[in-house]
Amino acid sequence: MEIQYPELVSIKQMSVQKINNTSISSFLDTLSVEEPLEIRLSYVSNAERIQKNISVTMRTPGNDVDLAVGFLFTEGIITSFENIENAYGVKMNCVSQKQNIVQVDLKENFVPNLMQTDRNFYTTSSCGVCGKSSIESIKTVSPFMNRARPSFMIKASVFYQLPEKLRKAQSDFDSTGGLHASGLFNIQGDLILLTEDVGRHNALDKLIGRSLTNRLLPLNEHILLLSGRASFELIQKAAMAGISIIAAIGAPSSLAVELAAEFNITLLGFLKENRFNIYSSSHQTIIVTD
Amino acid sequence: MEIQYPELVSIKQMSVQKINNTSISSFLDTLSVEEPLEIRLSYVSNAERIQKNISVTMRTPGNDVDLAVGFLFTEGIITSFENIENAYGVKMNCVSQKQNIVQVDLKENFVPNLMQTDRNFYTTSSCGVCGKSSIESIKTVSPFMNRARPSFMIKASVFYQLPEKLRKAQSDFDSTGGLHASGLFNIQGDLILLTEDVGRHNALDKLIGRSLTNRLLPLNEHILLLSGRASFELIQKAAMAGISIIAAIGAPSSLAVELAAEFNITLLGFLKENRFNIYSSSHQTIIVTD
Repeated sequence: MEIQYPELVSIKQMSVQKINNTSISSFLDTLSVEEPLEIRLSYVSNAERIQKNISVTMRTPGNDVDLAVGFLFTEGIITSFENIENAYGVKMNCVSQKQNIVQVDLKENFVPNLMQTDRNFYTTSSCGVCGKSSIESIKTVSPFMNRARPSFMIKASVFYQLPEKLRKAQSDFDSTGGLHASGLFNIQGDLILLTEDVGRHNALDKLIGRSLTNRLLPLNEHILLLSGRASFELIQKAAMAGISIIAAIGAPSSLAVELAAEFNITLLGFLKENRFNIYSSSHQTIIVTD
Repeated sequence: MEIQYPELVSIKQMSVQKINNTSISSFLDTLSVEEPLEIRLSYVSNAERIQKNISVTMRTPGNDVDLAVGFLFTEGIITSFENIENAYGVKMNCVSQKQNIVQVDLKENFVPNLMQTDRNFYTTSSCGVCGKSSIESIKTVSPFMNRARPSFMIKASVFYQLPEKLRKAQSDFDSTGGLHASGLFNIQGDLILLTEDVGRHNALDKLIGRSLTNRLLPLNEHILLLSGRASFELIQKAAMAGISIIAAIGAPSSLAVELAAEFNITLLGFLKENRFNIYSSSHQTIIVTD
């Protein structure tokens, strides 16, 4: 297994006019780059190697291979790092010469589950598109769903410190103000991994992709911190990686809470420096005030 | 043309534990509902009526028909309100009895452009997936691209007032803190239409869908206000509706700015009560300080 990380530009400077009260001035602003990334999969079926475009997503360049590997895993297309032969950025054969393609070659003996890439994924289960069926369909594909996992007693003060630690580490965020972040912490509250993107789902896929590559899964001795709101899609991706404690700086949606409860995931919302709300409590996580 | 608006639940109360410094209390929190919506299209091809599932999106229930109609229009699948025969919510035939499906029946004489629903939309143009080709591919489908449009001189103070007007109107936002909003204002700064959703692209599709239904397109005498960041996808959808002035409370991405410039759209970012940045200026919009 070989992984090559391409060199990419994730921020860009642009000349901007600043209007402040009644004054106008010009300055050079730093923006987050947003560009399409195409994920290409190659696999062997009936003794023939097949090339398939899996997805095009708008993303901030950087950790592209992590993003591709994470996407394939959280969507249930691959089930392990061992499925991968090679993963690498491809330079496009056009004027721009940008690296907006990641190619992932799977090993000969592994057949990917491409049913999940169908847009109508949620509608295939018996009950159609109610929240219930969305939750049920995810249960069937999460590899760590029925695994035993460790128990923890965590002080509330450990959580209080996480947002500030994330902000300090977000060097890109300071310059552009435009990126979502996912942070992976250990139970003591130390930051282990930080990923950023204009898309919140991409930031999480980058984090899970890197963790998969580093053989860290399941992430059941960790805390995932989300810089914004907690939606169903983010809880779904976290559940795929075996994450059992999630804290969001913003609000959760109803379906995010229901999915977390169903998966025995602890879900905190509105995390600030001295308070948070508990929306779902797992049996293995006991939160104590000091 | 008949439109039926279903009754839907967009907020939900849940029992939540609040941790504040060292105290724990219970309270009833109000959450934004997030549930899948399936958009079904029916159209006539070769004298036969065909039924097709176009998309499943996670959305906040409410204005579902607007969302479906807006999505079909901003994705270039339909080109006018006149293409639609009927649009209505469908109750699901299962235990939950939820209305998570919208059916849109097109008129017999209109053939939808379903090429756009292909996941690999961006990759079909000659240059592959560079930002340039994404912009080019949108140019070809925007119906108002080459239309003449009116010119305006707008005071900066008109923009300063918009965020507060949006917040006042966001009644759901106050109770859940979890919804993105799109606001449509006239050039004088009066709020005309407000839409909300857990997904920012859905909030904008709802706004454009309702505007299409009310025969308001092209929206070239209006200001669009986005409650968060301005991404490529949002500028793309706005461009489809002929919107030429966009203000975002958050940061724009690089590709959002490039697309706005290419489409002659005025794009403001970081809009606050006494300041903003101008990232792209259209020839028809002159902004003056007082």
